[in-house]
Amino acid sequence: MPTTEYATTLVVLDLVGIFVFAVTGALVAVRKHLDLFAALVLGGVTGLGGGFIRDVLIGATPPAALADWRYLIVPVAAGLVTFAFHPVVGRLERVVTLFDAFGLALFCVTGALKAVDYGVGPVPAALMGMVTAIGGGMIRDVLAGRVPVVFEGALYATPALAGAAVAVVLDRVGLPLGVVAAAGFGTCLGWRLLALVRGWQAPMPKGPANV
Amino acid sequence: MPTTEYATTLVVLDLVGIFVFAVTGALVAVRKHLDLFAALVLGGVTGLGGGFIRDVLIGATPPAALADWRYLIVPVAAGLVTFAFHPVVGRLERVVTLFDAFGLALFCVTGALKAVDYGVGPVPAALMGMVTAIGGGMIRDVLAGRVPVVFEGALYATPALAGAAVAVVLDRVGLPLGVVAAAGFGTCLGWRLLALVRGWQAPMPKGPANV
Amino acid sequence: MPTTEYATTLVVLDLVGIFVFAVTGALVAVRKHLDLFAALVLGGVTGLGGGFIRDVLIGATPPAALADWRYLIVPVAAGLVTFAFHPVVGRLERVVTLFDAFGLALFCVTGALKAVDYGVGPVPAALMGMVTAIGGGMIRDVLAGRVPVVFEGALYATPALAGAAVAVVLDRVGLPLGVVAAAGFGTCLGWRLLALVRGWQAPMPKGPANV
Repeated sequence: MPTTEYATTLVVLDLVGIFVFAVTGALVAVRKHLDLFAALVLGGVTGLGGGFIRDVLIGATPPAALADWRYLIVPVAAGLVTFAFHPVVGRLERVVTLFDAFGLALFCVTGALKAVDYGVGPVPAALMGMVTAIGGGMIRDVLAGRVPVVFEGALYATPALAGAAVAVVLDRVGLPLGVVAAAGFGTCLGWRLLALVRGWQAPMPKGPANV
Repeated sequence: MPTTEYATTLVVLDLVGIFVFAVTGALVAVRKHLDLFAALVLGGVTGLGGGFIRDVLIGATPPAALADWRYLIVPVAAGLVTFAFHPVVGRLERVVTLFDAFGLALFCVTGALKAVDYGVGPVPAALMGMVTAIGGGMIRDVLAGRVPVVFEGALYATPALAGAAVAVVLDRVGLPLGVVAAAGFGTCLGWRLLALVRGWQAPMPKGPANV
Repeated sequence: MPTTEYATTLVVLDLVGIFVFAVTGALVAVRKHLDLFAALVLGGVTGLGGGFIRDVLIGATPPAALADWRYLIVPVAAGLVTFAFHPVVGRLERVVTLFDAFGLALFCVTGALKAVDYGVGPVPAALMGMVTAIGGGMIRDVLAGRVPVVFEGALYATPALAGAAVAVVLDRVGLPLGVVAAAGFGTCLGWRLLALVRGWQAPMPKGPANV
């Protein structure tokens, strides 16, 4: 039955996205020379934190990840693998960045559509999509004692917001779910990859900073 | 009808408070030389974060700001204006500080009364009022990578707690809402402005710090 | 009646745990030369923060601490005492660490069992137990502008997770609550004290960190 197949596909994609996000979290722990536990926690919050913030804000508690153990095992596995083989994983940085863009595009769409499902209006639903996609990385950076990298010029949040907005608008128009998801996903992924390849930056403040 | 007028007045005051708080958040982003997105996020969390914490803790989800797009547009506008004209806004620091005291006094009262409305007892309701008033600024500082300024001697949280406590007590006594709100607002604003003018400080630890 | 006695005992133990955790929070504030308000807030979030995160995630809002003023008075008292007598409290560091281990063992068990009560599955319930025990300390460290100490090699989170897991498994087996609680508590406390006495460390990443 196609419905079941879609659902299975979505869970698999979701778990892949969580795995890659968790790898980026565990890499930060290793590079700050923190311990194994830090690698697991930073992996876990990077992979699941954005969804947790969204679920707590829209009142969808307990979050899905607490009701399905697969969502907890995946970041643990990512953390262990990264901790054990970090020189190898670190050398695959470009591959990680590529998969990270994939996770970003996936989560901005699933996050926005879940918010719509919970009766949130279109503007906050798009915002929730962006929060789902970038929230975990922001918690990771705060816990690791650094300013969120998303604040320092990389075009990362804007593609997520754009992808979420496209998904929300097309869903409102009434297009089929597959089209809605594909359009939102493609918008975010395309923009993010272009930004990476061409080195696009978010606008920085002009003039002296300490006025 | 007076009820509608009161409601409109409250929304307008609320939006003014959010705007000013958001300006302080965006100014922190500009001064740390972070990008436009950081200005919007730090503006948004400063303006809305305190209310989000309160709403999540008292179970009032989704927070009001996610159900009314005006609450999302205002911090975005504040962030854009501050980012574009930061040398001007920065020179208006004293005006910003004055309006910030106004926002503090407003949010400690509305935050406390909302908690009372949700059946929270008087002591935690006063605490929720303070959290509404100062929580956004604390998230701003953590995200910007600095210790919350509210921890470093400025008399900022105490007036907010006092204003919230006055509002909760007078509400419990059964006074009309207008009196309750005015007394709480006046307590917080008066104390905060006196602290600013006279340079009052919160007590600091005595003796050597690293015992 | 035994039930009432059990309940009273649990509340007293809970308040003792919160007090000790709050002392560690207030000590961090004093050592960073932050003001009295910071001592109270860092005390409060250290004592109550872990339970707040758990309650928000499992949907048990408002958290118990907001429905019972004793849970708010205790960290305030701990913060005031620590602020006023910090040279004395600081010299009692070993006693504080001992009591802190007691609070850790207590909270991992009560946190896990509360999550089970709210219908959370065994794996996430054990995780919630650990979060209850270590979450407050992590918020304390983030607010104080330092990387959570739990990330830097001390065996602190693992005993909490182990104690929570033991409690969840034995509860699922159907043993009486007293046995369940004692076994979980003993597992965490024993492991933590052994780690302190013998200087056990969590695994650190091998090889160069900045690959």
